Parts: sequence; structure tokens; C-alpha cells
Amino acid sequence: MKIKILQKKIPAYLVLGMILLVAFVLIEPVRSFAQDATGGKTGTITDVTAAKPGAPTAAELGDAVGHNKIAINIMWTLIAGFLVMFMQAGFALVETGFTQKKNVAHTMGMNFLVYALGMFGFWICGFAFMFGGALNAATLGGAPGVVSHEVIIHMFGHDFGIAGSVGFFLNSKVYDVGVFTLFLFQMVFMDTTATIPTGSMAERWSFKSFLIFGLFISMFVYPLYGNWVWGGGWLSQLGANFHLGHGMVDFAGSSVVHMVGGVAALAGAIIIGPRIGKFNAHGTANTIPGHNIPMALLGTFILALGWFGFNPGSTLAGGDFRISIVAVNTMMAGTAGTLAVLALLYIQKKKPDPGMLANGMLAGLVAITAPCAFVNSISSVIIGAIAGCLVVLTIHLMDNKFRIDDPVGAFAVHGVNGAWGVLSLGLFADGSYGDGWNGVAGPVKGLFYGDASQFGAQCVGTLTCGVFVFIVMYIFFKVSNKITPIRVKAEDEVAGLDIPEMGVLGYVD
Amino acid sequence: MKIKILQKKIPAYLVLGMILLVAFVLIEPVRSFAQDATGGKTGTITDVTAAKPGAPTAAELGDAVGHNKIAINIMWTLIAGFLVMFMQAGFALVETGFTQKKNVAHTMGMNFLVYALGMFGFWICGFAFMFGGALNAATLGGAPGVVSHEVIIHMFGHDFGIAGSVGFFLNSKVYDVGVFTLFLFQMVFMDTTATIPTGSMAERWSFKSFLIFGLFISMFVYPLYGNWVWGGGWLSQLGANFHLGHGMVDFAGSSVVHMVGGVAALAGAIIIGPRIGKFNAHGTANTIPGHNIPMALLGTFILALGWFGFNPGSTLAGGDFRISIVAVNTMMAGTAGTLAVLALLYIQKKKPDPGMLANGMLAGLVAITAPCAFVNSISSVIIGAIAGCLVVLTIHLMDNKFRIDDPVGAFAVHGVNGAWGVLSLGLFADGSYGDGWNGVAGPVKGLFYGDASQFGAQCVGTLTCGVFVFIVMYIFFKVSNKITPIRVKAEDEVAGLDIPEMGVLGYVD
Amino acid sequence: MKIKILQKKIPAYLVLGMILLVAFVLIEPVRSFAQDATGGKTGTITDVTAAKPGAPTAAELGDAVGHNKIAINIMWTLIAGFLVMFMQAGFALVETGFTQKKNVAHTMGMNFLVYALGMFGFWICGFAFMFGGALNAATLGGAPGVVSHEVIIHMFGHDFGIAGSVGFFLNSKVYDVGVFTLFLFQMVFMDTTATIPTGSMAERWSFKSFLIFGLFISMFVYPLYGNWVWGGGWLSQLGANFHLGHGMVDFAGSSVVHMVGGVAALAGAIIIGPRIGKFNAHGTANTIPGHNIPMALLGTFILALGWFGFNPGSTLAGGDFRISIVAVNTMMAGTAGTLAVLALLYIQKKKPDPGMLANGMLAGLVAITAPCAFVNSISSVIIGAIAGCLVVLTIHLMDNKFRIDDPVGAFAVHGVNGAWGVLSLGLFADGSYGDGWNGVAGPVKGLFYGDASQFGAQCVGTLTCGVFVFIVMYIFFKVSNKITPIRVKAEDEVAGLDIPEMGVLGYVD
Repeated sequence: MKIKILQKKIPAYLVLGMILLVAFVLIEPVRSFAQDATGGKTGTITDVTAAKPGAPTAAELGDAVGHNKIAINIMWTLIAGFLVMFMQAGFALVETGFTQKKNVAHTMGMNFLVYALGMFGFWICGFAFMFGGALNAATLGGAPGVVSHEVIIHMFGHDFGIAGSVGFFLNSKVYDVGVFTLFLFQMVFMDTTATIPTGSMAERWSFKSFLIFGLFISMFVYPLYGNWVWGGGWLSQLGANFHLGHGMVDFAGSSVVHMVGGVAALAGAIIIGPRIGKFNAHGTANTIPGHNIPMALLGTFILALGWFGFNPGSTLAGGDFRISIVAVNTMMAGTAGTLAVLALLYIQKKKPDPGMLANGMLAGLVAITAPCAFVNSISSVIIGAIAGCLVVLTIHLMDNKFRIDDPVGAFAVHGVNGAWGVLSLGLFADGSYGDGWNGVAGPVKGLFYGDASQFGAQCVGTLTCGVFVFIVMYIFFKVSNKITPIRVKAEDEVAGLDIPEMGVLGYVD
Repeated sequence: MKIKILQKKIPAYLVLGMILLVAFVLIEPVRSFAQDATGGKTGTITDVTAAKPGAPTAAELGDAVGHNKIAINIMWTLIAGFLVMFMQAGFALVETGFTQKKNVAHTMGMNFLVYALGMFGFWICGFAFMFGGALNAATLGGAPGVVSHEVIIHMFGHDFGIAGSVGFFLNSKVYDVGVFTLFLFQMVFMDTTATIPTGSMAERWSFKSFLIFGLFISMFVYPLYGNWVWGGGWLSQLGANFHLGHGMVDFAGSSVVHMVGGVAALAGAIIIGPRIGKFNAHGTANTIPGHNIPMALLGTFILALGWFGFNPGSTLAGGDFRISIVAVNTMMAGTAGTLAVLALLYIQKKKPDPGMLANGMLAGLVAITAPCAFVNSISSVIIGAIAGCLVVLTIHLMDNKFRIDDPVGAFAVHGVNGAWGVLSLGLFADGSYGDGWNGVAGPVKGLFYGDASQFGAQCVGTLTCGVFVFIVMYIFFKVSNKITPIRVKAEDEVAGLDIPEMGVLGYVD
Repeated sequence: MKIKILQKKIPAYLVLGMILLVAFVLIEPVRSFAQDATGGKTGTITDVTAAKPGAPTAAELGDAVGHNKIAINIMWTLIAGFLVMFMQAGFALVETGFTQKKNVAHTMGMNFLVYALGMFGFWICGFAFMFGGALNAATLGGAPGVVSHEVIIHMFGHDFGIAGSVGFFLNSKVYDVGVFTLFLFQMVFMDTTATIPTGSMAERWSFKSFLIFGLFISMFVYPLYGNWVWGGGWLSQLGANFHLGHGMVDFAGSSVVHMVGGVAALAGAIIIGPRIGKFNAHGTANTIPGHNIPMALLGTFILALGWFGFNPGSTLAGGDFRISIVAVNTMMAGTAGTLAVLALLYIQKKKPDPGMLANGMLAGLVAITAPCAFVNSISSVIIGAIAGCLVVLTIHLMDNKFRIDDPVGAFAVHGVNGAWGVLSLGLFADGSYGDGWNGVAGPVKGLFYGDASQFGAQCVGTLTCGVFVFIVMYIFFKVSNKITPIRVKAEDEVAGLDIPEMGVLGYVD
């Protein structure tokens, strides 16, 4: 392989020049081998008119317009879904940054695995439980009896009647957004829920116990409550059945995603108990500072980015022009949450702890998730500012009154502000959006805009979420603790979980 | 809560199987409760034709086509805006990585808060100052006298005449891109400007002083200059009024965003003075190395990503096919800047410092921001390569000649190359784009393509930017120093700002 | 500059109020200067109908519909391309996290520079070699003789006949996706290939030697094999010429991108030899743990995000509804790879090492890249699960049998699973997609769906890739070693490469 001439140190450019020449000679015979150069993948470069001489007919135009419309909606929903998926990285960084150096591989590992675990559980049956009924009813026009049958048949996550799920403007019975698109979008939402308790239970949760949890919440708990609100279930029908506004309305999941996750996080934190050293003998809370502020703030930036998939993407339609208002409302609520926390800290004569500012932004974002499409931007600022205050208050109460150890403030951010978000919709919805929502005529209006019954529906939904999720998850954690202990050994907790639980150190010097 | 049977260690899969069964039984009554499964949020799954039997009319088709067109433009602008918003994370990481470990929470905290602060200021009145006139003129066809009135009415960031701002192809007086979309897109641009001085003034800026700055630049300085170039102001009208080409042309903000930020950064760095230890008694510059190269390079990658929202997004229209040329030009200029710095370092017999390579890429990206839509890709490479040389030269001069301490090279990257970008458009614009730009007939051409007057307009705009921003910001920093000291105490600076300014350590071991 | 009144400590809000007033007074004359407020950049806010009274004609509608269609496709491809570009950050973090602290600036620096270097090489001639023939044939309808001439003329990356490359629905001979869009999308794909060997050769590769490699692979090796599969070359024509199914089919580059990179990584790792201390005197492999798990996992999250540009983007068309199925398949294979590795680790009584879990996800993603559009989601799960097993097995064999030191498992992830991906398409393609692919009638079917000849084509393509790339890269590394030594000095390797190779430390305490 040694070429003599090269031992004389011929300069690099000369050798490169020679290689270029040889390659160029080589490429010609190769190319002439090809019969039809356009037959390759570049077949996407097509002549769009060759097959259709003359002006298009109205039917052809209608088909093409409808195709474009569906493409716009699918693209929007997919891109938004990708941004939401990336939020997993944000959660991983926030939770790892806010916890201790000795548990880095464990906290990061849980957040990484929940991504895969949750997807798998939702694919197996979660999606079918949540939307199977609605989708099959829509596709097949089936009677309720047919539905459960279809759910079983299709519950392995593929072929949910996809054959009929995309089509053209002028075809009969089509979806605006294909079922696979909906599946992807809903799957990443569910993964957000599943990852919230990894924060409240961080630094002491057994990895094996966490694995069982990941499957349970993605297969059953999230889909069940989600079905009630988004899958056509009873909470969505409170308006039609009980004249409570438009029924429970939650645009992008303050309750379905965040409150479910936050309440599960609370149940878990209670059952697993506080970290060793969190509360001293007198019951006073010690501060256990996070080990890496830049990591936590990078995570917050990533979460904030993802929220612009979360909320505007929840139109499931790029052709719904409300997306820009949703995006601006999302932005303003996050801003207001941050600034409210800043003001509170200064009022309390405290320093502007970046961790608390980050929690303020997340609180604002969680709260605006339900009402983002239904309110104006001044209301968004108010909702976000209140959320910022709530997160500071809740963290204070959890530490000093209830003595529940939630290392990253998961319940304060997602649980309390999830509830506040749903309720705030019942207060501030201004009637500029949502005509016919949940099958009820007229736009969605809150208490301040004249519809007290909408606020009633929101209260019922919030209460249901809190009670249902807390009880189910409390029982689940109790039961799962019998199967495999929920909590790691005390000596492992003190030494750090990376080696005993994950087998590797998070940081090697 | 203890179930006896479980104390016998029943395997997990069996328990999960039981839970599945129970859940499945539970879900049926829940589902049958729902009157109409499609009434829920899945109402987005609609039959697009049920309501419209028969072939569509030309008017219906026109409406639908126009709706798709606007959707494409709004989607494009929003997605691009999200990418630009994420650049805040990039700035935070670059500035924190390039500074010292002892100030991590402070540097990161400023970059995080400017995100919220700038948004708030721009929402209160910045956007109204910048675009209120143009938008109101467009919406209301109003006389100049009407404009300021409208600006006041709408200056709290909501309801800028949005009612008339979206519509269909065949309606009268509509926007291609809704006002809220424009607001979001412009807000994230402004935030880029606001975050640049946090780099040049890092490691010694008082957090409170920074807060005042954040509001001032987002409410007044950025919007004012922005109005002159993008809001229909006098710089944009140099062509119509003084026959200087098409007037000042800055496609995506080399001047409006980067040079404004970079010149403000220079004024701030001069007034706040160098860090303790930066220059020794003989006036020689000491190198204060950044504490974390991977952090700075990750930030650069994020900024590079965001630039593909910044530049191609500035068409405000996905239907403007120039987006792909803009994107390629952006790419090539960043590449050329990096490689130019690499070549310079090797010529100077230096090692390929990754921090300098990163600055080279950013310099190229800043420079191409103004001309990206108007030049070909060979010009882009030339513009980027010169930008890379300029950044190396400026950093050398700042350290060794002017003795101004700019820890991250903010003025070199954004100020000098912002100016170079605007001027380069006046040289390299090749006439392939921009017919009718700023209301002047014919495509935009630079000096090398026969239009010297365009280069004149670019010079006037650049000079105005430098003089106006430097004077205003110099006065501002002087005045704000009277209100609250701009610089932290010397002992805090030496010990590190994290505890005294932010109350927490950035890293805890 | 000192204003007396201010020395009396006037509160900040008062001063701000005054500034606001002054600014507002200032802005009016400025604005009235503007002749026509809509003449500025807000010229994008246009009245879409003013110029066209009356109902649109069929031809006008057709034009508008076609324009929307092309916009949808260009937007989709560009956004997907941006996500793929961001994968460079993912690779940088994964490789740096999985290697040692002492080489941080070097590993990160190589990954950063390959971004710029690869782009430059691909712009100079890589793209022209890969697609010049196909594009020119499509544009000019040229005979093979014309092609090479055109390639030379256009090989500096600009003006590849772009004039004819975008157009409207009713024009003759247009592209669905413009050439610049294709250029950007293909360039970021190539950069993925170029960055893979920086992992297998990390911690001992001379930076100068790496520079030569970066140009060589982006200018010649990648484009040549890519031409055979995607540019209309002989592998794509195996179907038309030898009745082997549809010829070699690789939807998004399991072979073209990943296997090329992985095999080059293998050749490099063999020639450069193992790191000092990797294998002891008895030939047993020592574990050299990565220094930063959160960094590596963040990189994995970024890569996973980028894959949703990589695979769904490879339709080059947002109007191809298959994108949602591609996205879901991509997701499920990554999930299955992760869970397969988790299961394997538990079966081997090992701990769930997050690094191995991350490799499992990447393996699944690499494998599904070729077949993602052609298989159903159950097949995706199977393909991903097998990929997870393969990555564990290969890493074991490399360490313990072949004694090749590949610090990040680049060959295991990209080489082996690239091959598996291409072959799996030949097994699992179910005929639901790809009618007319590579110019052969009928949908693409694998062995399990009745077309053994397709599997034959996949075998030929895989074998060609392995043999061709290995030989060329083996020779290249041997030759380049004569020009400048491929390996750093032993003392530098032991001490760490940051100072000797890059001139700066990666981390400064």
C-alpha cells in the first residue's frame, strides 16, 4: 500500500488534485451506466403538467387545493410535534440541572428512557384507549358497540384505519389531519406527562420502579383522562349534556398533560417521602441547591421553544389562522410569569435566583396552555403573572407547610398551574374563538365575559383531574411498591445513585 | 391500602395484565357516556366536503387557494420566528461559555431574563413605535395625523387592528401575514439586539442596571432605528426621496438587529470599563479564557440553526421561492467566515482555537444577514470570508490598540460585521431580486453591478446607525449610572458575581 | 454629560417616563418624513386582490395552486434540512460526552469544523458530482455527453440552472423542489457522513490530517456512492437493467449517509490504531468511560430531533402524505432500539448504562432510515429492536474479538446498522409505497412480501458500499498519513490534545 513517490513528501494540494482527476475520470463510465438519470431518487423532480395538457377543470383544481390544504395541516402538526418531542431534552436538563451532581446519570437516564418507554406504551394501547372510539366512529360511522371491537383489533399502534384517513378535498369522509399525524402529536404530549414525576421523585426513585410507572401512565392513566376531555368523553360533553358552557375546554393540555403529570408527581412525592437531609429534626426545610444552573436554564429555553409546538400546534391545522394569536399569547404568559417572579423576589428583598425565574416562565407557559386560543394578550399577561405568583407560593408551602419534598417544583409548576390554566379559561375566554367547540353552538366565553356555566365546566374538569389522578396514582405507587421497592437503599441515596442504579458515573474527571 | 395477595410477590406482568383488564372494563361505560364521539377536540377531524356537494365554484376555489397561501406564509414566518427565539439559548451559552466559571449564574441569568424583559418592552410600546404607522396606514388608509393616535390606542400590544388583518384571497384589504405573526417575528428579532450587550459587559454589569437597559432598548432604541429602515421611515425612503438606489436595504437585519446591538455593546463596554485584570499596568491585554468550550460551541450551533429562521424567515412568506437561495447564501457565508479564520490562524502560525472559529462563523452569518436575498453564492462566500478576517482584526485592535474589554467579541462580531453586511449589499447585489423594493422600480443592484447610488444609501444607513445608536446608548448608560450604578463592587467582581448578584452558585460540587 | 438634577437620585420610573415622552415627541417628525409608510419592508403586507378585480380564471387559479404546492414542498424540505443541520450539534455533544475530559476542545473542534469544511467541499464539486448529471438531464434534456460539460461549468456551487428550476403549476418543465433546496438538503446529509469518523478516531487524530479528510469525503467519496444510489447511477438502475426489484432503494440514507460514514470510521479506526491504554498486554479491552453523560444524552436528544428532518424530509415534499407514516416509523424504531438494549442489559444482569441506551436509540434510528417509508409500524419495531441487539453485539466484538478501538461506537451504530437498514428494506417492504420508484413499475416489496429480487438489489448495494468505501478510505488514510501524520504524538495523547492541537483548554477552572 506504500507508494514510493509519496515518501518524498509531495504537497497535499498536488495529491488532492490527482485524486480529483482520477475521480472525475471514474465518474463518467459510472454515469453513462445509468439509463435514465431522472429515474433515481430525483424522480421527485417531476414535470407537474406533462400529463395534463390544457387548463385544469374545477374538479382537478378542487382536488389540488384540498391536497394542499391537508398538506399544510399535516406539516404544521408534524413540525409542532417534533418541537414537543424535543421538550424531553428540556425536561431532562431542567431536572438534572436542579438536582445534585451525584445523581446526574440517574436523573438524566430516567428522562431519556421515559421518552422510549412512554412511546411504546402509548403505541401498544394508550392511543387506542384515548382516541380509538372517536376515530372509529368518525371513520366507520360505527355504533358504540362496534367501537371497542375496533379498538382491540387496532391496538398495536398500526393501521388504525389509516386507509381512509387521508384524501382529497372532493373525496368523501376524509380527515384534515391523518391518523398517524395525530398519533405522533398525541404521543409526544403523553411523554410530557410521563416525564413530570421524574422531577418530583428525583434522587431517590428506584429505576425499576420507574420503568413500571412509565408503562402504566402511558398505557392507562393519561389516555383515560385524555379520552374524557379530548376523545369525546364525558367531560367534553358537559355542555351538551348538562348545559355547562361548551363542556370542559382545554386547548393544549393544561389539565390533560400538565395537571395529570403534576398530580401524579405529587402522589409520588408523598409516597416516596423526602430525600434524606431535606427536612431536619425540627421539620425545617433545608435547601438542596441544584448542581448546574446553565444546564437548567438551557433546559428551560428548550422547553420554551417546545411550547410553540405544544400550543400553536394544538390547532392541528396550519390553516387555522388563530395559530399566530396562540403563539403570541404563549409568549406573553411565559414573559409575565418570569417578570412576576422577579418582582416577587425583589419585594421579598431576595436576589433574582435564575432557577426561580425559570420556574416562573414555565408556570406561565403551563397556565396559558389551556386558554391560549381563547383569550387576548392582556389576559395572557394576567394569567401568566398569577401563575408566577402561584409557583412561588406553592414551593414555599410545599417546603414549609406540607413538608413534601419536590426537588424541581414539579407539582408547583405543572400541578397547580395546570389547574389554574383550566380555571383561567373559564374566567378570561372572550368569545373570539371556539364557535361550535365540543358540539355546542356559539363561541367559548368565560365568567368575565358573561358565561358562568363555562367556569362551572372548568371546575368540574379540574376537580375530576385532581381527584381521579391522585387516587389512581396513589394506589398505583402503593401497589407497585409491593412489586419492586419504589425507593432506593438509603446508603445508595447518600452516596449517589449513578453507580448503584445505572452502573456509570455521570461525570468522570 | 395494603392488599394481602400482593405481599406474596406476584410478578409485575401479572399485575399489569390485571390492571389492563380493569381499565378496559372501566373505559366502556365512560365512552358510552359520550353522546357524539366526534364532538370532542377531534372535531378537527372533519368531513371537508359534506357541506358542499357538487363541484366548487371559481369564487370558492379562489377563497380556498387564498386561504392556503396565507397559511403557508403565516406558518413559515411563525416557524422561522420560533427558531430565532431559540437563538436566545445560543447567546446564553456562547456568552457563558466564553466567560469565567465564577460568573456563570450571572451571565446565564442576564441572557435568560433579557428574553422576558425585551418581549415585555416590545409588547408595551416597541412594536407600536416601529410598525404602528405602517400598519395603521395599511389598515386604515389613514392620513399621517391618524397614525400617532392609533399608536397610542394600541400600544399595549394587543388588538392592533387584528380584525382586518387576516382574510381570504378574494377579500378586500388583507395582509399576507397577520399582524400577530409579524409581532412575534419582530419581537424575537428585537430580543437578539437586546442580548448582544450582555456579552460585551459580562462579568461586571450590575443586574439592576441591566434590567433598566433591557426595557430601554426594547421600548425605544431598537424600534426607532427599526422604524427608519423597516417601518417605512426615512432611511427606507432614501431612494424615493433622494434617488439613492432603493433607499437603505437591509434584508434581515445586519444593521437593524446586529449593528444596533453591537454598537450598544461598544458604548456599554467603554463606559463600564475593562474587567479587573484584563489590562496590566503597561496596558497590555491579558487573555481571560472562557471556562467551557463545549458550551460556547453548542451555543454557536444553536445560533447557526436560528439563523435559518432569521434570514429565510425574513421573506415573511413561504411562498417566496427566494427562501432556498437565502438559506444557501446564509450557509455559505457562515462556512466561509469559519474557514477564513482557520486560514488566518494557520498563516499567523497559531493553533485553530475553536472559540475563534466559532466567532468566524458568527461573523459570516452576521454579515450575510443584510445581503442574503440579493447576492449569489460566490458573493456570499466572499462576504463571509471578509467577515471572518474582520472579526480577527477587530478583536486584535480592541485588545491591543483601543484597550476596550469585550469578553465575547460582541462588537467585533455584531457591530463591525453588521456594518460590513449592509455595505456589502451595496457592493454585491446582483439585481436578481428586489424589484420594487421600498417602492422604487427595478431590481436592487450594488456598485459592482452598476448602481453606485445603492452603495450610497447603504453608507448613509450604516453611518446613521453607528452615530445614532452610539450617542443614544452612551447617554443612556451615563444617565442610568446615576440611577443605579452600572458596575458591581470590585470585591464582588473578583470573588464572582453569582452569590452577590444572583443569590445562587452557577455550579455546585 | 453629568446632569445635575440626576445626582439627586430621582427614581428610575420617573426618568423612564421622561425618556418615553421625549422619544414619542421625536418619533413623530421622523415618521412624517416617510412618504409612504407601506413602501418599506412592510411591503410584504400587500393587498392580494387589488390588482385583480373579478373572479379568477381557471388558469390563474392553476398558477396559484401550483405555486402553493411548490411552496409547501420547498418549505418542508428546508425546515427538514435545518433540523438535519442541527444534528451536527448532536454529534458534537455525543462524541465529546463519550470521550475524555482532556480532549474536549479537540473533539468538539473537529465536530464544529467538519460542518464548515464539508459544506465547502460539497459546494465546490461534491453536489455537482452527485446530482449534476441527473439535474442537467432533467433541465436540459441533454444527452450524456452534455452532462459532464455542464457539471464542470456549474461546479462552484452556484447557478446550477436555477433559472429553470422553480415555476408554476402550469408552466412547462419545472421542479417540485428547487435546486437550491435540494443542494441545502443534500449538503447537510453529507455533513452527517463526514462527522461520523471523528467519533471512531477521536482522542488521537491529528487536526491537520482531519482537515484533509473533511474535504476528501465531501468532495469525492460521499458524492460518488451517493450518485450511484440517488443520482440515477448504476445501483439505482439495478431494477431496470437486471430485474433486481426496483434497484437499490435507500429512502433517507441508511447506506448513502450512515454506512458510508460508518465504514470510513472503521477504516480510520483500524489505520490509526487504538488509544494508548485501551488494550492491555493480554489484549483485553479496558473501559475508558465518557466524561459527561448529560452531554452525550443531550446530543442524543438533538440527533433524535434531527432524524425527523432526516427521514420525513426525504420525501422532499410536504405534499407527500407518507410523511406522517415515515415520522411514526422513525419514532417507533428508535424506541424499539432503546428498549431492546435495556432488555439485553437486564438479561445480561447489567445495569441500564445510559450511554448504551442512547446507542440503542441511535442504532434503531440508523436502521429505519432506509426502510422508513416502505414498512408498517410493527416492522419498524422489529427492525429497531434488531438494531439495538446489533449495536450491543458489535461493540462487544470490536472490543473483545477484533480489538479495534472505536471510542463512541461509530461503526456499530452507523456502519453495521446502516447495512442492516438497507437489507431490512429488502425484507420488510410491504408494497404500500413506492410505485414507479427508480423507474420500475409497481410498489416496492421485500422478501417477506413476495419479492426476493428486491432483497438481491439491497444485498448488491450493501456489498458495494462496504467494499468500495472501505478500500477507498483505507487507501486515502494510508496516503494522507504520508502527507501529514494521521496520529498525534504519544505524549500529547497522554497529556490531552486540547493545548497541543487546539491551543486552548476545553474546560478552565
